[in-house]
Parts: sequence; C-alpha cells; structure tokens
Amino acid sequence: MPKISHKGETMPASPIRKLVPYAETAKKAGMKIYHLNIGQPDIETPDTMMDAIRNSKIKVLEYSHSAGFESYRKKLSDYYKSFRINVESTDIIITTGGSEAISIAMMSCFNPGDELIVPEPFYANYNGFSCASDVVIRPVRSYIETGFALPPVSEFEKLITPKTKGIMICNPGNPTGYLYSREELELLKALVKKYDLYLLSDEVYREFCYDGKEYVSVMHLEGIDQNIILLDSISKRYSACGARIGALISKNKEVMAAALKFAQARLSPPTFGQIGGEAALATPKSYFEKVNKEYMARRDFLIGALNKMEGVFCPKPSGAFYCIARLPIDNSDTFCQWLLEKFSHNKETVMLAPATGFYSSKNSGMDEVRIAYVLNLEDLKKAMICLDEALKVYPGRIVEKSSSAKSRI
Amino acid sequence: MPKISHKGETMPASPIRKLVPYAETAKKAGMKIYHLNIGQPDIETPDTMMDAIRNSKIKVLEYSHSAGFESYRKKLSDYYKSFRINVESTDIIITTGGSEAISIAMMSCFNPGDELIVPEPFYANYNGFSCASDVVIRPVRSYIETGFALPPVSEFEKLITPKTKGIMICNPGNPTGYLYSREELELLKALVKKYDLYLLSDEVYREFCYDGKEYVSVMHLEGIDQNIILLDSISKRYSACGARIGALISKNKEVMAAALKFAQARLSPPTFGQIGGEAALATPKSYFEKVNKEYMARRDFLIGALNKMEGVFCPKPSGAFYCIARLPIDNSDTFCQWLLEKFSHNKETVMLAPATGFYSSKNSGMDEVRIAYVLNLEDLKKAMICLDEALKVYPGRIVEKSSSAKSRI
Repeated sequence: MPKISHKGETMPASPIRKLVPYAETAKKAGMKIYHLNIGQPDIETPDTMMDAIRNSKIKVLEYSHSAGFESYRKKLSDYYKSFRINVESTDIIITTGGSEAISIAMMSCFNPGDELIVPEPFYANYNGFSCASDVVIRPVRSYIETGFALPPVSEFEKLITPKTKGIMICNPGNPTGYLYSREELELLKALVKKYDLYLLSDEVYREFCYDGKEYVSVMHLEGIDQNIILLDSISKRYSACGARIGALISKNKEVMAAALKFAQARLSPPTFGQIGGEAALATPKSYFEKVNKEYMARRDFLIGALNKMEGVFCPKPSGAFYCIARLPIDNSDTFCQWLLEKFSHNKETVMLAPATGFYSSKNSGMDEVRIAYVLNLEDLKKAMICLDEALKVYPGRIVEKSSSAKSRI
Repeated sequence: MPKISHKGETMPASPIRKLVPYAETAKKAGMKIYHLNIGQPDIETPDTMMDAIRNSKIKVLEYSHSAGFESYRKKLSDYYKSFRINVESTDIIITTGGSEAISIAMMSCFNPGDELIVPEPFYANYNGFSCASDVVIRPVRSYIETGFALPPVSEFEKLITPKTKGIMICNPGNPTGYLYSREELELLKALVKKYDLYLLSDEVYREFCYDGKEYVSVMHLEGIDQNIILLDSISKRYSACGARIGALISKNKEVMAAALKFAQARLSPPTFGQIGGEAALATPKSYFEKVNKEYMARRDFLIGALNKMEGVFCPKPSGAFYCIARLPIDNSDTFCQWLLEKFSHNKETVMLAPATGFYSSKNSGMDEVRIAYVLNLEDLKKAMICLDEALKVYPGRIVEKSSSAKSRI
C-alpha cells in the first residue's frame, strides 16, 4: 500500500469539526446539543439573495469567468467603496469561499518554507492552508488579559528572519472578536513598510462591529497598496456559509496575475453562490441593523453569564460573533469531548471549540474555549446553564488555577 | 514591493482560457466566435436538477458536512454501484468540482518532488494542480497515429525512479477522447502492483462512451483497492459545470482520512450544487440516450469534416466530447491567437485550444489543436467552414509537413 503524503499526516484536524463524531453519537443517543463550536449562525439568509437563486432562469449551468461574474465584481467594487476601500472590479477575484481566497493568496505570495507571522490565537484553518502550501506560521502571542489586543511591535520584530514574507491578521477577529484600532493598524503598516512584507487581512466580519467602534480596513492604510491582500467572504455577512463565495482583493497586479492562474486551474467559483452574492448586495441596511442588534444582545448576555460563573473569565469582544473564555479546567480538548461523551443536564449539553486548535504554540489555550454566539438568546441561555452545571462536576476542574487566574485579571 | 511566489511565476496559464482576452476584444469588435476551445457543453442541464435548486426551502444557507451531504453520498454510492463500482458513502468525499478532487488527491498522496507519470497529451489543468502541490509530472507520450492509445508499458517503466509515486489517467480521455480498453487497464494494474504506486483516474466522462464500447473503470481492477483513487465530477455528466460539484473516491482509509482534513480546512462544498447533484441522480436514462446520440452525431460530422480538409488528420474518438486534430500549421498557439485577432469569415471565427498546453514535453503539440464538440450541429458546421477557410489563408501554413503527416497515417 503506498504511503500518504507527509502533509496528509501532519495536517491538523479542524478543532471546530474534529469532535463532530462524538456529537453525532450523542445525538443518536437522544441528546440535545447546543452548537456553539462553529461559526454557523442561525440568522436567516436575506430573501434578496435566496429569491435571486430560486428565480434564476438558467438553462445551461455553465462555468463562469475564473475571476467570477464581471457584473458581480463591478457591484462588489461599489460595495467596498461604501467602506472607503477604493478597489476596482479588476482588483477582485471571486473565490470559492474565504477559504479559497486564503489558499490562493498563500500559493501566490509564498514559497515553501517562507514564514508568516500571525497573532495567536488565530482562525484554526490558517494552519491547514499554511500546511497545504508549506508555509511556516510563526505565531506572536496575544493575551486574554488585554482582550487579545495587538501584541507589541517588538514581539513581531523578534520573529523576523530572512524567511519572513508576511503578516496575517483577522479583523474583526475570529476567534477573539477583537477589533483592531487605527493605531494598532498603523503600527503594523510601519512594520510592513520597514521589512517589505505582505499584509494579509481577513476581514469577513466587517459588518459586525459593536458599540459604535470604527472598522478600519488594511485598505485604509496609505502607501502600502502593493503589500496588501484583503481576504473576504459572504458566509458571515449574509449568513450564507453554504454559498461558498469569497473574494481575494489586491491592487498588486503581479499577485493578481498569479492568483488568476490558480483560479483558472480550478475553472470557476460556484454559479448559484455568485448569483446569490450579487443579489445580496442589495440587502437593505435594516437587515444588518437588526442582525447587529441581535448579536450585541447575545454577546452582552453571554459575556455576563460567563463572567458570573465561578473561575471563568471572558473579555468583551467588539466585533464578529466569537469570544474566547478561560475556564477552570485542566485541558480544553478533554473537557469539550467530555461535554459530548459524559455530560448531560436534562438530556442537553453544549458543544464548544477547544482553544488549543487556535494556537500554533504548543500547550497554549489549554484552559480556553472558543464560543460562537450563533444561537438565539433562549438557546444561548440553556447552553450557559449546561456549561455552568458542567463546570461544577467536570472531573478535571482546577480550582486553584482558576482563582489565581481571576486574580491576575 | 514583495515578490510573488516561484509557483505564482511558473504556474502555467490555462491553454483553454489564456486566449480569452483576444476573444473578448474580437467580440467587442462585432465578431461572432464559435467556442470549441472549452468543454462547456450547450446541452441543457436536466430539469430534475434545476427544479430541486429552484424549489429549495432553505431559510439559513448553512455549511454542510465537509465530506458533503450524507444523503447525497449514500445515493452516489448507489449510482456508482450501477456501474459495478462497489463503494460505500464513507468511501466518498464530495468536492468543489473535479478540480478540487484532483487537488486534494495530490496533496493527500504526494510529497513535494514526488513524480507522477501521466500519458500525454493530458488535461492541461493537471499541470496547474501539480505545480500547486510541487508534484513533478513525468509525461509518457501517446501519439495521434494510434488515436492516443496507452503507450507501451516499457515506456512507463523507463520513467520509474525512486521518486515515482503514482500514475494518473483520464478515461474516457480529455483532450483525446480515447477510451482505454480492459487490456490496457490490466497492463496499468500490473505496473501499479509491481511498483506499489497510486493510480489516479479521472473518469468524469464515463456517461459518454460511443459505438457500444465498454467503459472500464479502474475500480473494476481487482486486487489494487488500496492504490486507487477515482476522481469525478458532475460538470459534464449533467452539463452542470457551474455547480462546482465533484467527488474523490477511494477505499484506502488513510488517504480518505488525510483528504478529509484538507476538506475540513475549506469547510464544505457548495450547498446548491449538492442539492442539484443529489436531485440529478434521478435523471432519466432517456436524457443520457438523447445526449449521447447528439454527441455522436456531432463527433461523426466533426471528424468527417476535419479529415476532408487538406492536410488535416483527426482520429475518431470513442468517448468524451473532444478530439485532437493535426493541422498543417507552424505553431498552434500562434494559429489560435491569429484566428481571434486576424481572421474573419463573414464576421465569424472559431476559438480552439492549442494542444501545446496539453503536453508537458516541450515543443509537443505544435501542429495540434483540441476541439470540443460542445456546440450544436449547425454551429459546428459553420465553425468548420471557418476553420477550413482559415487554414487556406493562414500565413504559417506548412504544406509539406501536413502531406507527409497524412501519408504517415
């Protein structure tokens, strides 16, 4: 039997999805599971989008342009301009989800062995894409105590080697919910200029910024146009994860020419997703206002409930729909699996994502979990009751560590 | 400005799509272009499929399972069983088009520098995916004189080195239309066993076998289950290229476990494509009978018309909807571009794919083009008139070479 690839062996399993078999077993045994492990919102996809798909008059379901419908890219450039992101349709390649935008960006910019600095905890699948492209992620640690603010520039500089080719951020952040300030982004800009690095920015949560805080895009930073690659997706924007539509955006023509070749190899992005994405651009502002109000109410409840639990700490995020909470536990992987395998509160339990998978540094995130507030308030309340009860009886509860942790805040 | 990747530089542009800008310019100038360059059929997508998409009652367009809908995979295993391909739903991962199936298979099986033997001419995008995965394609030449039959086993063996990790075929073949016989596949099986290689087989054209000839799948070969990876797509089967739905199929559990990790990193295949693909399995046999009759009529006309042209030779393919024709020309890239830039017959011209892009060996396919018979007979006739007229006036026509070539048949 031939051997599988080294990549195939070392590729990390998704921390968001690896516990799925345990959840399936629990469900088959009659358990109700509150899914807070995955960024799959329960928010309805806008009618504007779904109607366009249902009413499409296609006779032959053809390939599209490898960069996506021209009409869609033109309208998208207007969408970005409404955020003061001045890009033209030729600066945009429509991708199969944000995932493909990341993967094409990595293949276009980096050689095997090149290093990419990423503040951790970071979106776990960056590990998968870097593994697939043989890119080495060098994590720079951010901390729960500061709400996962940008680490000091000196910490980035410590990691810079001749192999360093870029920095990657997610803003607003998954899994932290942290929203970078203009000052923080200006610091990154100086770094990027000083070392002539790529700056990849995953801004798929731009519509979800709370408390009146400003969304600053890397595209707002002046003078580093050639260094910037914006990664985007409609999955979260319109609660349309299954559409598999994203975008890779850059004013660097060489990067775009390389990216187009990778896009051509896979022929085209999905047609129905594009029809939906194009129509979704007409989604009324009121939709986002309603959705944001809903997410804020969930966040406020969640953060309040978590911080009321003995030994738990969770900073209040300003964007996206995730938070990282520190729990009084020995091991978040064991705990999250135990929740599915061993725990039950009135035949209910909660599924969380162990934070370990969001760190690249070994043994980090052992007492942290990522919680996605993607369920309605009622379910969220029941999920928090489950978590509270679970923490009381979890055999790996660590009392001392948690109280000292709390006192460290 | 940071440099793009080495891959981004060396990645070949798609021979099928690289001439698109010239076609766009010609169209803007009022030219009518017959597109025989791309495997985009004009056949209507089955109503069964499109109706399922239009009638879907989705409220939240969610991610699906990373391996695709379980219901779809179960029905797909029945579909394969109807071709005596005995696979279960757990042996199948739904991918974003056949493209992603190829790309995930390469990443799961091969390390950078590993060698993959592929009979050439081969589907041009194999170059793209091998470049993206740093896999080295070692081409083994097949010839137009034999209709692109499998090269002798001795030719494969000449290429085998300690780095050789697999063989890849396309059956029925794109771009050749060649259908491998059971005998040819048994020869490959012996090779695969002898050297313990992976055998990747792209069988997306299985529904299109003509003249009563038998379709033999690599999955019919006994005793090499652990070596085989079947790559599939619904794009051609249901004329649904824009759905972006394919499949990676193997009974090798280690390969499937690795492949699932790559699938998890990109989250899920497109939901609407899956809804369509699942519904399409109920497409009546009569649909394929009608489509096959249509393709056969086109093929018969096309091959006849080509071979009637002075200096042209085209073997008759038994499957898919492509042929490779040898033309009396100096350079197929120059010729195909000239057709779009300089030639006009009653304000019409034809777009073909230069065969050079389907060969990995340098300077091969210089006098060959790939023609996709994806247009109706009437358009195909007009396209052949254009080609005939074009060959008469093309400045790079080579008379001597063509007649000697003809005499070589």
